[in-house]
Amino acid sequence: MRITAVETFDIRFPTSRELDGSDAMNPDPDYSAAYVILRTEDGWAGHGFTFTIGRGNEVCRAALDALAPLITGIDIGDLGEFSRRLTHDSQIRWLGPEKGVMQLAVAALINAAWDLTARIANRPLWSLLSEMSPEALVDLVDWRYLTDALTPEAARDLLSDAVPGRTARSRHIREVGYPAYTTSAGWLGYPDEKVDRLARQAVSDGFRQIKLKVGADQTDDVRRFALARNAVGPDIRIAVDANQRWGVTEAIDWMTALAPWDPWWIEEPTSPDDVLGHAAIRRALTKAGPGGGPIRVATGEHVANRIMFKQLLQADAIDFVQLDACRVAGVNENIAILLLAAAFGRPVCPHAGGVGLCEAVQHLSFFDYVAVSGSLDDRVIEYVDHLHEHFTDPVVVERGAYRAPTAPGFSTRMRPESLVRYAYPEGAAWS
Amino acid sequence: MRITAVETFDIRFPTSRELDGSDAMNPDPDYSAAYVILRTEDGWAGHGFTFTIGRGNEVCRAALDALAPLITGIDIGDLGEFSRRLTHDSQIRWLGPEKGVMQLAVAALINAAWDLTARIANRPLWSLLSEMSPEALVDLVDWRYLTDALTPEAARDLLSDAVPGRTARSRHIREVGYPAYTTSAGWLGYPDEKVDRLARQAVSDGFRQIKLKVGADQTDDVRRFALARNAVGPDIRIAVDANQRWGVTEAIDWMTALAPWDPWWIEEPTSPDDVLGHAAIRRALTKAGPGGGPIRVATGEHVANRIMFKQLLQADAIDFVQLDACRVAGVNENIAILLLAAAFGRPVCPHAGGVGLCEAVQHLSFFDYVAVSGSLDDRVIEYVDHLHEHFTDPVVVERGAYRAPTAPGFSTRMRPESLVRYAYPEGAAWS
Repeated sequence: MRITAVETFDIRFPTSRELDGSDAMNPDPDYSAAYVILRTEDGWAGHGFTFTIGRGNEVCRAALDALAPLITGIDIGDLGEFSRRLTHDSQIRWLGPEKGVMQLAVAALINAAWDLTARIANRPLWSLLSEMSPEALVDLVDWRYLTDALTPEAARDLLSDAVPGRTARSRHIREVGYPAYTTSAGWLGYPDEKVDRLARQAVSDGFRQIKLKVGADQTDDVRRFALARNAVGPDIRIAVDANQRWGVTEAIDWMTALAPWDPWWIEEPTSPDDVLGHAAIRRALTKAGPGGGPIRVATGEHVANRIMFKQLLQADAIDFVQLDACRVAGVNENIAILLLAAAFGRPVCPHAGGVGLCEAVQHLSFFDYVAVSGSLDDRVIEYVDHLHEHFTDPVVVERGAYRAPTAPGFSTRMRPESLVRYAYPEGAAWS
Repeated sequence: MRITAVETFDIRFPTSRELDGSDAMNPDPDYSAAYVILRTEDGWAGHGFTFTIGRGNEVCRAALDALAPLITGIDIGDLGEFSRRLTHDSQIRWLGPEKGVMQLAVAALINAAWDLTARIANRPLWSLLSEMSPEALVDLVDWRYLTDALTPEAARDLLSDAVPGRTARSRHIREVGYPAYTTSAGWLGYPDEKVDRLARQAVSDGFRQIKLKVGADQTDDVRRFALARNAVGPDIRIAVDANQRWGVTEAIDWMTALAPWDPWWIEEPTSPDDVLGHAAIRRALTKAGPGGGPIRVATGEHVANRIMFKQLLQADAIDFVQLDACRVAGVNENIAILLLAAAFGRPVCPHAGGVGLCEAVQHLSFFDYVAVSGSLDDRVIEYVDHLHEHFTDPVVVERGAYRAPTAPGFSTRMRPESLVRYAYPEGAAWS
C-alpha cells in the first residue's frame, strides 16, 4: 500500500445557472470538488475530494499539492498514523490550525486513503469500520483537546457496549435503509409554485422530513413555510436552514415568527464559530414552538473540527450534530465527532448534498448506527437529488431511505468522463 | 486610488537553521510571508503580507491570487466596503468562513490597502486611525455576529468617550513609547546558558517582561524557568507560552508545577478554538500563583476571527487579548477586536515576532492607546529581534519600548532586494 502518486483535480459544475443550491448566504454556487486520486505501487487507486461552491476551489487544489509530499512514498498502513501525519505537520499546521482550506484538503486525502483501504479490503467503508474492534477505532482518533469531555477509555467502553448488537443492527439496516430527508424542495431561488410541487412530491416519494432555506426576507419565509406546511400536512417534519445569516437576537426573533408552522429544527442560525451564540439561541427557543415545545437547533456543515463540536455539546448549544464528510479532517475526525455525539446523547444528522457528500457521508451514518450510537431515533441523512450521476457508485435512495452501500470503498469515485468534462477551466462544460 | 495590479510573492527565510523561533509545537519554523503589492493607476503602491512558518506559504499565495480579481480595477475608497468585498464573497466564504488560509490572505490584502491609504495620506497608520471620527471607525467594522456582546452604538460611545484625551495621549506616547516584552531569550531550542545570558541581557536592555517557551518537557521547563527567574530577579514579569501543546487538565497540572516561580501569564495553554477549555483553565488557575494570586491566561495569535475573540471575552476565558496583525481579516477586524477588548476591560497585548509582525502590530497598539482603550496598564507588545532588517521602516525599540512609527504607511514594506533574495524557491537564499 505504498503511495506512489497523488493526482489532483479542480472539478466544477455550473449549478448556478439553475439556482439549484441557492440560499440566504450562497446565492449562486457552482458546486465543485477539489479531487484527489492516490495511486499505489500495486495498481490500486483511492479517491477522495473536498466540496466547495466554486471560486477558490483552485486554492484547495493547491493545498492538496502542498500536502502531497507528506504522503508520497509512504505506506498507508496505520490510518491513525496516516491522519496525524497530515494534521500535525508543524509548518502547515500554522495555516489553520485544523481549519479552513488546509483542513478541507486534509479531508480529501484522508478520505481517499480510506477509500483505498476499503477497496483493497473489498468492503464498503461503513461495513469495514463496523467490524473494527473498539480499541482499533479509538486509536484512529486524535485525542488532543478532547479528554476534558471524553477520554479514550470512556470511548472504548461506549463502543464495547455496542458490540453485542452489531450483527443484528447491520442486518436490520441493510433491510430497511437509513432515513433521509430532502432539501430539494426548498432552495431560496425557487418560485412558490415549485416549492409547493416539490414539497408534495417529497411526501409522495416517502420522505418524512423536508427542509426549507430561510433568512433573506422574513415575509417571504413565512409565506413559503405556510405554503410548505399546507402542502405536506402536520405530520411531516419541516426543518429550516438560515445558512449563518443571523446574529443571536435576529435568530430568536425570526424563528419566533416562523414558530406557528412548527419548524422541526433551525439549522445554522448564526456563525458556525459561535458556540455561545448557539447556546443562547437554543435556550431562548426551548419553549418557542407550538404548544410550548422546543424549536431545536442544529449546525455542523461549517464547524471546523472536533474541538468546536466538543464545545457545542459541552455548552448544550445544539440538538443535532450535522457533521460533514469533507469539512473536518476526514473519516478519523468524524469518528471522534460520532463518539462525542454518542457520549452526549445527541443524534447525528449529517450534512449532505453538494457534490458527492451524500455518497460519502452515508457510510458514516450506517457505521454510527451499527457500531457507535446504535440508534435511529430522530436520525436522518440529508439528501439532495443533484449530481449523483457523476459517481461510479451513486447513492440509492428509495422510499425516503438511503439503501446500504454495497460496492467496495467509500463511494467517492467520480466517473473518469466527468473528471474530464468538468475540469476547470479547461473542460468542455466550461468552454 | 483605482487598483490596477495585485502582485504576489512567496518569501521565506531559512530560520530553522538556527532554531530561532522553536517552540513546543513548532520545532523548525522557516519564517515566511505571503506578500502582496497593490498598485494604483496613479503610481502608488501598498504593501501587505501574511505570516506563515514555511511549508504551505505557496497556498497562501494561491489564495492571494484567487482573491485578486475581486479588487482589481476597483477604487479602494471606503475601506469598510473594501473589507467586506473580500470577506463576503459567497463562493470564497465557503472555504472558511473567516478562518484559515483565506483569512490569512484577506489579512494581507486589507493591510496592504491600509498601507496604501496611509501612504497617500502621508501619515503613519496609527496616527491616521487615531484621528478618524468614532462614526467612521465604527463603519469599518463588520458587526455581523457581534451585537449580542457589543453594538455599534455602544462602540461609538466608547470611542467618543476617548476623544477628549486623544491629543494628550498622542503626545505622551510619542515621548515615552509603548512598552515591549521580549521573547528572544526563551526559544525552546536554546541551551540553558543562552537563556540565562539573554534573560540578563533583556533586563539590562530595559525590558520589564520576558517570555519563555514551555510545554515539551516539564522537568526542563521547571529548570529553565527557575534559571530565568534567578537571572532577572523577582520584579521582572516572566510569561510562559505553551503554543497549544496541552489539553485542559495537562495545562492546569503543568502550570501548577511552574507556579512557585511566579509566571505572569500562560499563553496558548490549549487549542485556540477551545473557548470553554481556556475558561476552565483560567478558573482553575485563579488562585494558583504564589501567595494565592492568579496565573493569568492569554491567547490570540491563532484565534481565527472576531467571533472567537468575542466568546473568549464573554466566557471570561482570558486575561489578555493577543491579537495578531495578519491572522484575522486585517486592520478592520482588528478594530473590532480592540473594541471588544475595551468593552470587556481586557488589555490587548499583541502577538508579534515572525516576519514583520512587530512592524505592523505596533500601529494597532498605538491606536488602541490613543483612541480606544486609552490605557497602558498591563499592556505590552511582543518584541522579537529578528528579520527587521528586511523592512524599509523597521521598528525602533529602545529601553524596552516601541518608539512611535513616523514613516507614512503601515511599516509593512519589505526591501526590494529581500523580495528577490528570499523568493521561494528561486531566490539566492534558497539555492
